[in-house]
Amino acid sequence: MRIAIDAMGGDFAPQAVLEGVKLVLPELTKDAEIILYGDEAALQKGLAGLGVSDARIRLVATTEVIGFDEQPTLAIRKKKDSSMVRAIESVANGEADCVLSAGSTGALLTGATLIIKRLKGVKRPALATVLPTLDSCALLLDCGANTDCKSDYLVQFAIMGSAYMKSVFGVEHPRVGLLNNGTEEEKGNELTKEAHALLKTAPVRFTGNCEARDVLGGEFDVVVCDGFDGNIVLKGTEGTASLMMNLLKRSLMMNFRTKMGALLCKPAFKQLKKKLDYTEYGGAPLLGVNGGVIKAHGSSNAKAFRSAILQGVKLISSNATALLGEQIAQLVTEE
Amino acid sequence: MRIAIDAMGGDFAPQAVLEGVKLVLPELTKDAEIILYGDEAALQKGLAGLGVSDARIRLVATTEVIGFDEQPTLAIRKKKDSSMVRAIESVANGEADCVLSAGSTGALLTGATLIIKRLKGVKRPALATVLPTLDSCALLLDCGANTDCKSDYLVQFAIMGSAYMKSVFGVEHPRVGLLNNGTEEEKGNELTKEAHALLKTAPVRFTGNCEARDVLGGEFDVVVCDGFDGNIVLKGTEGTASLMMNLLKRSLMMNFRTKMGALLCKPAFKQLKKKLDYTEYGGAPLLGVNGGVIKAHGSSNAKAFRSAILQGVKLISSNATALLGEQIAQLVTEE
Repeated sequence: MRIAIDAMGGDFAPQAVLEGVKLVLPELTKDAEIILYGDEAALQKGLAGLGVSDARIRLVATTEVIGFDEQPTLAIRKKKDSSMVRAIESVANGEADCVLSAGSTGALLTGATLIIKRLKGVKRPALATVLPTLDSCALLLDCGANTDCKSDYLVQFAIMGSAYMKSVFGVEHPRVGLLNNGTEEEKGNELTKEAHALLKTAPVRFTGNCEARDVLGGEFDVVVCDGFDGNIVLKGTEGTASLMMNLLKRSLMMNFRTKMGALLCKPAFKQLKKKLDYTEYGGAPLLGVNGGVIKAHGSSNAKAFRSAILQGVKLISSNATALLGEQIAQLVTEE
Repeated sequence: MRIAIDAMGGDFAPQAVLEGVKLVLPELTKDAEIILYGDEAALQKGLAGLGVSDARIRLVATTEVIGFDEQPTLAIRKKKDSSMVRAIESVANGEADCVLSAGSTGALLTGATLIIKRLKGVKRPALATVLPTLDSCALLLDCGANTDCKSDYLVQFAIMGSAYMKSVFGVEHPRVGLLNNGTEEEKGNELTKEAHALLKTAPVRFTGNCEARDVLGGEFDVVVCDGFDGNIVLKGTEGTASLMMNLLKRSLMMNFRTKMGALLCKPAFKQLKKKLDYTEYGGAPLLGVNGGVIKAHGSSNAKAFRSAILQGVKLISSNATALLGEQIAQLVTEE
């Protein structure tokens, strides 16, 4: 189990990365390996500062960093010795099983597709995000790898998402929903109407259209959509949660009574915050490439890196990539 | 000021409609007129049951009702004596200034477009929804009248939405955002990239792309998108708010301490709920047709009907329709 980390990627890199590694070390097996790509001196200094010395950590010196504002394809092609490109290459050439980065999403997606390459038959890899529901969680994909999609991409997303939920979360027959503007079959835009028809005969447990209000409702294990709408759902959820938290805080300051109440409720608010905290859920796996790829949130802190590393461990040990590769290969053979 | 109401439309019609009318009567001027279309006997009985007798209410007997599951165009064409069609016609022939319905959205949109007709130059009327922000509100359009849109429709939505926010809410220079998957200019799908370029030179105060997390953030007064994505944002907001309320309730039941805290916090929770309660915000105006049209939520209760009627009053007295008509006409002349 070898995880390659782009230690220079993310708003708080490399410090948050190293703190995340420190947090996760006690949870990893003896034979695990964490390979950190980045400025060797900075990484050594950082680890020493945290008092971390562990044989399972290996440093690989790189000289370049890809920024958030760089054109993805150009950056991947030109910055051959960047922490991100080198970490991605380690998966491509078999030195690592999974790569993790909190750097530029576009660069990571481009790099993974160009260097690790797609699984046979996969039309477009998709970025998947685990969202909380009342009693469990749901996988939303695509969350931004493919802004404009064709209907057959959505069918592949359904297959890949189902394989992931089965292997990583143990959901035996994941219920797949198609994000749409109504539950009725005839609803939708050009894309979703076509996708609905295709999903009905696809080798997944398609349970119909899923309205945006039901994504977090717990009735679907996998929800598919194009990358534009996945982004809308994800960021819309974030915006609403943030507004509600702010409104709640303001209301609680209303008077002495509610202020006292708020003090008593603190453990409950904490629990709520934890349930909604993205840093608890790890990163977003890129499904459909020939190896593990996990995109962590750009503003990941130590806790988020810990969760993302654990997600990488799960991704590797569950063998999800192989499973979804088989299913896509089967689909392509049948076509 | 004459408001025509489809008294048979909505999940709780006609009872909720009549209760809403009772609630709103003290807030209306002496010369206001409420015209209720529906089953005359049922309406008379309902009003009597509520003890309502007011010269400002007029009943118009109709014999048919359009259901939620009917094909819109067919229903509008065939059910000439339905409460919805008759109420829409009253605006078309000048008997009323605004029509209000909580019935089938599709039928109301089709009916309004076919019977009242579009304002000169308007390519597609749009359904607009007022959403709460921390300190104010924002107008999101289109929320479902046009599933698939062209970029020039979005420009017209921006103009119509700006005129509405100016005339109804008194926002002098409404800040217009384009719903998109990133704030950077080059972000977007085919539609939003095109729309971004057009909006830059459109006669509105275009302030750039608006990510879904910022729709409720208070930095935009008007946010434009196609009807598919408007639906996603609207229902996504609803779903997230509902999940959070459920998670909060569950967390508050954690132990004796948090239960006591919850009791003390009750007024604060009530205030939060009120801020998020759609029944406080009235219905969604259909902008771009030659008269006032307001779509109330299908499951509107008395309070929601009261809010929607007051919104109709505002729509009429602000002269929003005339203002947006002028601006669209000017745009068309310039083209």
